Amino acid sequence: MAAKTRSDQRRAEIVRAALEVIAERGYRGASLAAVAERVGLTQQGLLHHFPTKEALLVAVLEERDQWDATPSAREWRMELLASLVEYNAMRPAIVQTFSALLGESVTEDHPARGYFTRRYAGVREDMARLLRAEYGERLPSGLTPEQAAPLLVAVLDGLQYQWLLDPENVDMPGAFRNFLVLLGEQGS
Amino acid sequence: MAAKTRSDQRRAEIVRAALEVIAERGYRGASLAAVAERVGLTQQGLLHHFPTKEALLVAVLEERDQWDATPSAREWRMELLASLVEYNAMRPAIVQTFSALLGESVTEDHPARGYFTRRYAGVREDMARLLRAEYGERLPSGLTPEQAAPLLVAVLDGLQYQWLLDPENVDMPGAFRNFLVLLGEQGS
Repeated sequence: MAAKTRSDQRRAEIVRAALEVIAERGYRGASLAAVAERVGLTQQGLLHHFPTKEALLVAVLEERDQWDATPSAREWRMELLASLVEYNAMRPAIVQTFSALLGESVTEDHPARGYFTRRYAGVREDMARLLRAEYGERLPSGLTPEQAAPLLVAVLDGLQYQWLLDPENVDMPGAFRNFLVLLGEQGS
Repeated sequence: MAAKTRSDQRRAEIVRAALEVIAERGYRGASLAAVAERVGLTQQGLLHHFPTKEALLVAVLEERDQWDATPSAREWRMELLASLVEYNAMRPAIVQTFSALLGESVTEDHPARGYFTRRYAGVREDMARLLRAEYGERLPSGLTPEQAAPLLVAVLDGLQYQWLLDPENVDMPGAFRNFLVLLGEQGS
């Protein structure tokens, strides 16, 4: 048990260090060597906890998912989601990491494919629950929560690419608020 | 002039071959070596026309943009866009290539970054024009065409990732038609 706990603590430290390195140097700069140095491990020692850069990045994104999901999904509201987009607009490095890894994940046999496939199935369910809490069984447009959920998720992801490529010309939080208008927020 | 034309023809042949190789083997399998073999060039000979895999892939995507833009953007209608999504759902390999390269392009100094940044500025303009032709100065939701255009583009891109990851559970053309309902198509 003690060994397990130490190993868990070590993993958590590594994930936190990776997040820092990503924030400072971006996706490409976040090498296993840089992360190992930050936590005072050899690269070999780091590989004991995370066999590949992709495995480490997935752990970082899972950690972010947990933070973002606080407060629990049951308490999510559309306004909170808009705030999350505003928050993301202040942390381009992690959004870049997410977006770059998502892009890679659709290629053949990519190690992050499983993570993203599971994540999207879960996020679509969470968003459908949120939409149902907000609008009931039908949105103002007539769509069901299950029909609107993938669109909500797609807009969140798609806007991130446009914003990362051209932050001067793309107002990601403003665009997301416009999407809430499309969903029917003007009636609230 | 003749030399220029031969070089242009050669480039066009290479791009066509690359598209075939992508369709058969996917993004990762589309190596410069495989493309060179297809057109009967040495890899060195191919590098004369396209210095990197990224440069070749950008040329492939530019070629696709030109095809997709026929008929000219002025004649685009929402229905045509829905048909394009249906068509894309039958060609996963090129959609995968686009999505993977888009993901890479948001990383530091990526060679495809310029292409995507320019492309999105242009596509947002095209979509705003299309939305104006369909709805006039205001959509039923009250959004302007310029406000709705980045959302339309984001949904197209975002749905592609969800679909590529989980084609069994994500009906990309159906989801896009639901987005048209959100835009206000139910009133047409």
